[in-house]
Amino acid sequence: MQIIDGKQTAQDIYNELHIETQKIIDAGKRPPSLVAVLVGDDPASNYYVRSKEKKAQKIGFSSKTLRLDKNISEQELLEIIKDLNKDSNIDGYIVQLPLPKQIDDQKIIEAIDPNKDIDGFHPLNLGKMIIQQKGFIPATPYGILELINRYNIETEGKKIVIIGRSLIVGRPLSILLSQKRNGGNATVCVAHSRTHNLPNLTKDADIVITALGKPHFLKAEMVKDGVVIIDAGINQIEAPDTKKGYKLVGDVDFEAVSKKASFITPVPGGVGPMTIAMLMKNTLKAYYSNKNKV
Amino acid sequence: MQIIDGKQTAQDIYNELHIETQKIIDAGKRPPSLVAVLVGDDPASNYYVRSKEKKAQKIGFSSKTLRLDKNISEQELLEIIKDLNKDSNIDGYIVQLPLPKQIDDQKIIEAIDPNKDIDGFHPLNLGKMIIQQKGFIPATPYGILELINRYNIETEGKKIVIIGRSLIVGRPLSILLSQKRNGGNATVCVAHSRTHNLPNLTKDADIVITALGKPHFLKAEMVKDGVVIIDAGINQIEAPDTKKGYKLVGDVDFEAVSKKASFITPVPGGVGPMTIAMLMKNTLKAYYSNKNKV
Repeated sequence: MQIIDGKQTAQDIYNELHIETQKIIDAGKRPPSLVAVLVGDDPASNYYVRSKEKKAQKIGFSSKTLRLDKNISEQELLEIIKDLNKDSNIDGYIVQLPLPKQIDDQKIIEAIDPNKDIDGFHPLNLGKMIIQQKGFIPATPYGILELINRYNIETEGKKIVIIGRSLIVGRPLSILLSQKRNGGNATVCVAHSRTHNLPNLTKDADIVITALGKPHFLKAEMVKDGVVIIDAGINQIEAPDTKKGYKLVGDVDFEAVSKKASFITPVPGGVGPMTIAMLMKNTLKAYYSNKNKV
Repeated sequence: MQIIDGKQTAQDIYNELHIETQKIIDAGKRPPSLVAVLVGDDPASNYYVRSKEKKAQKIGFSSKTLRLDKNISEQELLEIIKDLNKDSNIDGYIVQLPLPKQIDDQKIIEAIDPNKDIDGFHPLNLGKMIIQQKGFIPATPYGILELINRYNIETEGKKIVIIGRSLIVGRPLSILLSQKRNGGNATVCVAHSRTHNLPNLTKDADIVITALGKPHFLKAEMVKDGVVIIDAGINQIEAPDTKKGYKLVGDVDFEAVSKKASFITPVPGGVGPMTIAMLMKNTLKAYYSNKNKV
């Protein structure tokens, strides 16, 4: 059994991006730049945005966070989005979700210039993903593809079961893995809350990907020997014996399932760290397609 | 075994659309209007476009075909697309594919105003389909959904195997059928040319949908008793004993498979007739979202 080390892989990507950024700066050009828009003071959102900003700065990107009052109106936010779209010194930006109740998340997502949409949530980018045209792929599925490729996990002709059909993980991933591409060409089945007899499906799978948000959902008896496990779940459970009183676990019963798996991602340290790394890769991509690089 | 009669269902839809169009006209408004753009003189394309025009006129839509020389340049076609986008008296239009070699199909598709894209091939509409936002669904998958709904075929929790991952049938269908929706919530697996051990997959399926373009590909021994079969294949095979010397068959070995099926679409007369009917439904939808209805 081999652990798929997402933390190390993410670090490798940061190192690669750092070298590339240095080259850009050495050539006398401005570094890639991104902006995070944070509305309100939700601690989790605040944490994510700070992590993104820190990573961006570490690899040499120019990065800043726009902190907006939680009572901002939709119209005001749309005006800010317009300004971000116009500012040619900004290559890409994200609007940290979820937004406060008075704002329609989807309306905001669609207002983002698709060429700056480094989260890849704009429907135009989702559509381009389907037709395999240049665009942005959402960071978590993109990160999972990257792990599969960097660990040389064969997908062609393999049966993959994805548990979860969310717009940010399961759905895009199911499309990507079944396309003609490196790390694609798999036979992909999407399971979800309405699926009957899930173990029947997972037991037959060469690769199982969980993205449903239920701690320890996937048990050893649900998979076959030699299975590859990718766990995109991040669940907080009580852990009275720890300092914080809680810990993070995935959707997979890691201890038992890892005994049968050929490859497995741990939680934390698997898929999680890849998300921000791929967001940074998307930022660099946005930089290269921005005409104003100097 | 029940035959899913696509010809009759399409006729039902035409009747419904005809009644609705009459109401619009009776209210003193202009009828829904569509344009077909035909480049060159390919007989098959010519046939399809004429069929669309005839059906549109029969239900009372205003319809015309722009016939363009096969040597038209990409730039010239893009200018025509621009005019069609601007003309508020046109609710929707299609550009019959494939286009001649000198023209990039994808470039033309992306130039179409997504609000007039009744074929549903623009990436923005494909993306909106993923996020279940209002937009156009490509006609063939939309027609299959309609057959499933009108024949009250249960999909929730059922295992559906789709053979074929094309952008116009298999891929959109796989998304639609696994979404939370009427005629959705199925566990969907997408198989294709790289799939290993396909019979193992199809034998376990409650519904098998073929869209690969291989005559008589799906055999009786590949499915279980009571299976629902949707055959989106249209293949021309030699038939020396017929007047034309050829006949149309699907991807399914109909004679043998129909003996095991609970529901099955014939070819011709199954999925085929639904495509134009759904294109007309999309045109009506485009009419309703067009502000210039008078």
